[in-house]
Amino acid sequence: MSADHDPARPNYALRRANLRNLLVENRVDALLVTDLINIRYLTGFTGSNAALLVYAWDSSEDRTIICTDGRYITQVGEQVPDLRAEINRASARRVMEIAGEWQTGRVGFESHVVTVEQHRSLSALGTGLELVPVAGLIEELRMVKDEYEVGRLRAACEAADAALATLLDRGGLRPGRTERQVARELEWLMFEHGADAVAFETIVAAGVNSAVPHHRPTEAVLATGDFVKLDFGAVVGGYHSDMTRTYVLGKPTDWQREVYDLVYVAQQAGREALAPGASTKAVDAASRRVIEAAGHGELFVHSLGHGVGLQIHEAPGIAKTGTGTLLDGVAVTVEPGVYFPGRGGVRIEDTLVVRKGGPELLTRTSKDLTVVD
Amino acid sequence: MSADHDPARPNYALRRANLRNLLVENRVDALLVTDLINIRYLTGFTGSNAALLVYAWDSSEDRTIICTDGRYITQVGEQVPDLRAEINRASARRVMEIAGEWQTGRVGFESHVVTVEQHRSLSALGTGLELVPVAGLIEELRMVKDEYEVGRLRAACEAADAALATLLDRGGLRPGRTERQVARELEWLMFEHGADAVAFETIVAAGVNSAVPHHRPTEAVLATGDFVKLDFGAVVGGYHSDMTRTYVLGKPTDWQREVYDLVYVAQQAGREALAPGASTKAVDAASRRVIEAAGHGELFVHSLGHGVGLQIHEAPGIAKTGTGTLLDGVAVTVEPGVYFPGRGGVRIEDTLVVRKGGPELLTRTSKDLTVVD
Repeated sequence: MSADHDPARPNYALRRANLRNLLVENRVDALLVTDLINIRYLTGFTGSNAALLVYAWDSSEDRTIICTDGRYITQVGEQVPDLRAEINRASARRVMEIAGEWQTGRVGFESHVVTVEQHRSLSALGTGLELVPVAGLIEELRMVKDEYEVGRLRAACEAADAALATLLDRGGLRPGRTERQVARELEWLMFEHGADAVAFETIVAAGVNSAVPHHRPTEAVLATGDFVKLDFGAVVGGYHSDMTRTYVLGKPTDWQREVYDLVYVAQQAGREALAPGASTKAVDAASRRVIEAAGHGELFVHSLGHGVGLQIHEAPGIAKTGTGTLLDGVAVTVEPGVYFPGRGGVRIEDTLVVRKGGPELLTRTSKDLTVVD
Repeated sequence: MSADHDPARPNYALRRANLRNLLVENRVDALLVTDLINIRYLTGFTGSNAALLVYAWDSSEDRTIICTDGRYITQVGEQVPDLRAEINRASARRVMEIAGEWQTGRVGFESHVVTVEQHRSLSALGTGLELVPVAGLIEELRMVKDEYEVGRLRAACEAADAALATLLDRGGLRPGRTERQVARELEWLMFEHGADAVAFETIVAAGVNSAVPHHRPTEAVLATGDFVKLDFGAVVGGYHSDMTRTYVLGKPTDWQREVYDLVYVAQQAGREALAPGASTKAVDAASRRVIEAAGHGELFVHSLGHGVGLQIHEAPGIAKTGTGTLLDGVAVTVEPGVYFPGRGGVRIEDTLVVRKGGPELLTRTSKDLTVVD
């Protein structure tokens, strides 16, 4: 951890140092990391096969090893120049064998990632190591975004905002087009505006389809009078944006205004509840109670939001049954929805970063009821 | 299984009947399915949260249950009209509770999918059930593609073939363009030609980058004299295509011809070794020995191929250390490569279906050494 680290580059060494502190707290001598996203977070490696061994007392990182297979010899050298790399197809087995040779003692494994089968096979290696289940340590670190990460999240949200603005400007959202056409154009525009990839399968849901929270775009044709719900995101440098906007094609009915305003107020209440120290349960409740008070609690069929970063869904969940507490720098979505089966629905969603002075809004597209003619 | 089942639609009931036979063989009373791709294969459900319970002796399927959460109420009814659906966020727990009420006895779980943490939590439910690890049963069924699935694979391969033909026709592969530009255009063209999604992050690797087997496209500029390696695929109806072609920009050198011809012959040998009853190890060897005989065995750093279907990589693996045997209807890739670090490399890859009379080639783009001017 050096004060002069360039914030334009991820500080992997610092992330591993933070992890070492957690390993000491959790009384393990080392951690076997097999989740590929966690390995990317800790090292920058983006290949599809890897295992990482991080020692608790190893500030010089002499014993920290990454292992991958032959396809990634060049890549691992470029992406992870600061760690010893082993090349072996059976990456987890290989680093455990080395840990065994070093008589490491208690080795934690990611019990929420390692399957029963993998565990059986690692236990059968005869390394003499004690395998200790340890769940979610790196996910806990990943919740709080550093400056580099917030920069990537901002860029991903900007790409999504710009794509939607362009779509609306050029009249891409109009009666007669299909859901699929709109979805494809929106995705194409995200690339044009700097996305490396789309964050998840774009949702475009028109008319009665807007009542389906996770509708997949079809050949259904947009028509005047429809709600059109767009839920989409961009990936920039591995970081995901997530935004939902719901539009009305043509003049909204009283019912549409009512539903829209309800979700708008509920979403605002959720955003305003975001603060360091707030429980995730309380944030969900702040938004949900608005919808419940209007008598539509049973139509808000999902949780309020989720963490977002190297994955589109990551810790923390913001739900009725949540147990965690927010911290400064946690990136989350706030996305209440009300869905009338067979009729239509509205969801409004932003990506934000929890901050002491109030959350930083990353998705900047207007949430005012927008009539598209 | 009824003889009059429409091959234009997947026969989910037949797939579950095949699974029930395997459950009887494996001496379990029921199987808890939690892998989402396996659930899709067995039911057609495409949501992001689900658990499925399939009973061994239940041809009427009265006890076969799917569980998902509130976001998918409408979707599960549409996609899985033939099974009882439960709505509960904790989907695996819920179906296990029901199995417990029914005093099911031995319940298999997917030990290659269920994590140590999930297993601990299911064991702690106090259902009185005996949890039995069972690995890979559904993946075994999925290896052999039915007529519906081969149709989707064909369509996915056609979309990729058509996209590449269009790219070449319009001169999209030329000196001065960046790897990223080519990758974006190829992906866009796949959508234009009917893809629902791209199968994986498109690889465009020019010049020295072609020596990196899984290179991610950069701002590197294509230049005359380069090898340009394109590895890409389309998804149609959930099924993935996978194809690699390597081109030469401008007149090839003798070295380029030599490397290309070597990989070409090795790939042909691999394709010709595909047959029902052939061991996957023998198929890998048939191709690998061509490269080894030329003295470049150590530059072919990966396995020869993999199964392809609802996932881009699925069973069977075709590798040096493989253990399986091919059957009629198994879909695989054949993709040898030779990579000279710091200089360049060639990979040629097709997607094929193993058939008695010789494999059916699904990716039809020419593999002759093609000089792009």
